[in-house]
Amino acid sequence: MISDPAPPGAVPPPEGSPGTLGWQGIRDVMMDRIRARHYAPGALIPNEADLAAEFGCARATVNRALRELAEAGFLDRRRKAGTRVIAEPRRKATLEIPLIRAAIEDLGAAYSFRLLTREIAPPPPEVRAALRLEDDVPLLHVVTLHLADAVPHMVEDRWVVLATVPAIEAADLTRDNPNEWLVRNAPYSEGTMRCGAALAGAMASHLGCTAREAVLVVERATWLDGAPITLARQHYAPAYGLTLAL
Amino acid sequence: MISDPAPPGAVPPPEGSPGTLGWQGIRDVMMDRIRARHYAPGALIPNEADLAAEFGCARATVNRALRELAEAGFLDRRRKAGTRVIAEPRRKATLEIPLIRAAIEDLGAAYSFRLLTREIAPPPPEVRAALRLEDDVPLLHVVTLHLADAVPHMVEDRWVVLATVPAIEAADLTRDNPNEWLVRNAPYSEGTMRCGAALAGAMASHLGCTAREAVLVVERATWLDGAPITLARQHYAPAYGLTLAL
Repeated sequence: MISDPAPPGAVPPPEGSPGTLGWQGIRDVMMDRIRARHYAPGALIPNEADLAAEFGCARATVNRALRELAEAGFLDRRRKAGTRVIAEPRRKATLEIPLIRAAIEDLGAAYSFRLLTREIAPPPPEVRAALRLEDDVPLLHVVTLHLADAVPHMVEDRWVVLATVPAIEAADLTRDNPNEWLVRNAPYSEGTMRCGAALAGAMASHLGCTAREAVLVVERATWLDGAPITLARQHYAPAYGLTLAL
Repeated sequence: MISDPAPPGAVPPPEGSPGTLGWQGIRDVMMDRIRARHYAPGALIPNEADLAAEFGCARATVNRALRELAEAGFLDRRRKAGTRVIAEPRRKATLEIPLIRAAIEDLGAAYSFRLLTREIAPPPPEVRAALRLEDDVPLLHVVTLHLADAVPHMVEDRWVVLATVPAIEAADLTRDNPNEWLVRNAPYSEGTMRCGAALAGAMASHLGCTAREAVLVVERATWLDGAPITLARQHYAPAYGLTLAL
């Protein structure tokens, strides 16, 4: 249920001496007890020392198991108040964000792209607002069409803050597309992402659909330690959706 | 950059004796080195013993730091081949899935709902396919309209597998809506989620919009240890989007 953070073949977790179950086994037993309401929603569970005695393992092993269940949203751990079962868990879904090239190749299609626009221009107000820019210093504006088996897959309208990423001015973005160049050269430390729907509108001609079709729109803004990097608005071809793991 | 899995006030990580930096500090130094290409994309990084000597800490502390960076998609750890910098990191975005009631209250609005449909009916083929059902044994079919400040926010069309969750047949779903009842009574162990766009179509009358407006559609299917629980298709009111954390 909870993904094991140790990838296959990784160094085994160093914590504690293995009990009969190991931390994964203890995690699973504890999860079963939460599900079965052996530990009721909102109730305190036994402390780590008591659980370690019950499972015949090191306290660190119990700690590791409980940390997983806390990260997954089932337990609330407080230093003094103890550990409670969260009555209304907030589950999480995870979206992998590969390179656009890789996303299209993952679909089994051949990837290509066309750089439609490259200009340096003052950002429109909504771009300034999304990146929290205080002035209208010109940014790099690039529009890229990404194709799967030569069919339009997504059009990306992107603004890049040159003050944060000056090297992109000299980049050949017809060779490395802006998405790949940024992933390789300008890692972000924080960001926001929004998935919504819109009519294709002005993007219809790029996407090869009609203006009245509904398309998925993904907007992503990123920063590096507080410095704005880029805002990208992606319109996907009709019927395309993003898949998340639960 | 990488979320600290130890919540504030949690029991401190038990691994190793703390060095001058702690595992978070070592993680941050290693991240800076990856960003600065001190460790080049694709290159091997020093082994744990050497890093522990460099940082003056226990090997377990280095292990904890590297595990975080591997989970975040920056390092690829192999038991025998060593640890490499991932050349093209796949970043992740995370979506919190609160109760619908909580999501609406988080918007600062008053929550209410109306149960529009409750019936036991054979599942249509696309529902059978999504839940990987082998027969057309009737399921519970519920349609619920969720409102924010009495304005339609989302309509949820849901099928529940009674063989997995028999107790829902006796539930009063006008008191606890199906979403809340299932979160409280039928936790899932795995699932899939897809975000896409569609025209409002037949949902327009529920959502108070026209059939030709674009709306976000979220489809979620869940299982408990392989047993299908439910398929929910949610149509959101126009202009509403889901926000993920990067």
